[in-house]
Amino acid sequence: MTLDRGESAVFPVVRGTGSDPAHFLGVKSGRDGSTGMLGVKAGTTNLGNHLRGLESHTSTTLLIDDVTSALIAVVQANYLNGLRTAAADVLAVGRLARRDASTLGVIGTGAQAVFEIEAIRTVRPIGRVLAAPRSAQSGEDFAKRVRDRTGVVIEIASLEDTVRAADILVTTTPSKAPLFEHDWVKPGAHISAMGADNVGKMELPISLVASAQLYVDYPEQAAVIGEAQHVVNAGLMTIEVLRGRSLGALLNGRIEGRRDEASITVFDSSGIAVQDIAAAQAAMQIVTAAEGSRHERVS
Amino acid sequence: MTLDRGESAVFPVVRGTGSDPAHFLGVKSGRDGSTGMLGVKAGTTNLGNHLRGLESHTSTTLLIDDVTSALIAVVQANYLNGLRTAAADVLAVGRLARRDASTLGVIGTGAQAVFEIEAIRTVRPIGRVLAAPRSAQSGEDFAKRVRDRTGVVIEIASLEDTVRAADILVTTTPSKAPLFEHDWVKPGAHISAMGADNVGKMELPISLVASAQLYVDYPEQAAVIGEAQHVVNAGLMTIEVLRGRSLGALLNGRIEGRRDEASITVFDSSGIAVQDIAAAQAAMQIVTAAEGSRHERVS
Repeated sequence: MTLDRGESAVFPVVRGTGSDPAHFLGVKSGRDGSTGMLGVKAGTTNLGNHLRGLESHTSTTLLIDDVTSALIAVVQANYLNGLRTAAADVLAVGRLARRDASTLGVIGTGAQAVFEIEAIRTVRPIGRVLAAPRSAQSGEDFAKRVRDRTGVVIEIASLEDTVRAADILVTTTPSKAPLFEHDWVKPGAHISAMGADNVGKMELPISLVASAQLYVDYPEQAAVIGEAQHVVNAGLMTIEVLRGRSLGALLNGRIEGRRDEASITVFDSSGIAVQDIAAAQAAMQIVTAAEGSRHERVS
Repeated sequence: MTLDRGESAVFPVVRGTGSDPAHFLGVKSGRDGSTGMLGVKAGTTNLGNHLRGLESHTSTTLLIDDVTSALIAVVQANYLNGLRTAAADVLAVGRLARRDASTLGVIGTGAQAVFEIEAIRTVRPIGRVLAAPRSAQSGEDFAKRVRDRTGVVIEIASLEDTVRAADILVTTTPSKAPLFEHDWVKPGAHISAMGADNVGKMELPISLVASAQLYVDYPEQAAVIGEAQHVVNAGLMTIEVLRGRSLGALLNGRIEGRRDEASITVFDSSGIAVQDIAAAQAAMQIVTAAEGSRHERVS
């Protein structure tokens, strides 16, 4: 919202790899007007790490004072990263999904999908959750993780059944090709495409993105590494049009939300530095407050 | 050197500002084959900080394991940054300056200049150091800092006298225009331009850079934010030619050094992530070793 008002800034994203080109390093940086902080987040993806008992995604955020340029905090943000991504999505779902949306479909069974289920239930009357796993094993693991964390019992279903049933569909995969057919999508559905965050990544059919009411977290970034890159590259949408489709503009009331009950809405999240800064700052304040009260107890 | 051999990588530099556009944030990242680490350095420049009693430049480096992508260390690199910059310069001066170079000229009287004087004395028989300060006050302060740290008594001189006398000239300023005239430079001089590290920064006359034997720390970066940007932008040198002028290629013996005793050589340093990673790793090893011996003593 401060980004849409010009009070925040997102700097270009850097993508690199380890000497194994399948190990990714992403660096997101920016300035957040709401907290008065600059921030730099280094995020890593190393999908072989489950074999080592290590996390496949790590995030570390540096918070830097906007006035003095001093380093204020180094925040281990593995958990925060999932939280901030789901938090942005909840803002989108809250504005874009139909009020009566009750069936949630999930494609992707990684850590982010659990955060999404937990978060979306807070803004819509979700009565049913379907998930389409890649294998029976990953489906069972995922169902257990969701139940342990949220109490929700999910239904494991095929990709097609999941998409066809979903009032709200959330994709959280590292896919590089559309995950499903455009015509499987229900009229009136809302889709949150959370996975695309690099050149070449893609979760949705291009015709769906081009024809839906599209919203993106940050147009400049979405056009390069988000789901929107494909409609821009195909010449189906200009960057100028995309600049008028930001979540911030929606939240600030500058652009309209869902047009009618039959519209299909899409939120394209590539994840932006101002989210990382705000999340790290919030975590720091909680820790600082907790330490303060502990010091009071011991003194 | 590992960069020149393709065993290391430098990712694109990010430049942003605080809400005050004179406060800079720079993010350098890459992968260093010699240490097996990826690294991200966040550097800040806030020249108003001397009024607050705070450092005008800060650096924080994250070290990330190339194999596991795990965060290995967070290194406060304010001091290291000066050291690594001078260390790279010493490699250049050691290969490029005449063996008999004995007069060192310094333009710029900030923290980096002190590191440069200290370092260059280790590779050439420096008998005389001239410095051209912006004001009498800054000259006195600088002379005291150099004396306190290195024992060297410097001579304060005009810009022209400093340049004309120098066998080795080092510039460490945030200038955006040439600091001196091309024809003041002695035949056979070596010049290390350490200041340019952003679009628009410039310390040397463009004719000097175009006609000298030019070497750069990293061609892709030098062409955008280094001194070399101006010869490339003016069409006086192609990026292809620049790719054959790296310090790594010189150190690896792939390109020649000083052609003859009358040649003017220029080293254009914009500072690269692999230097930050190697410096942070070295610091971490020293600290780890010191902690190990302390633990031995107390156990």
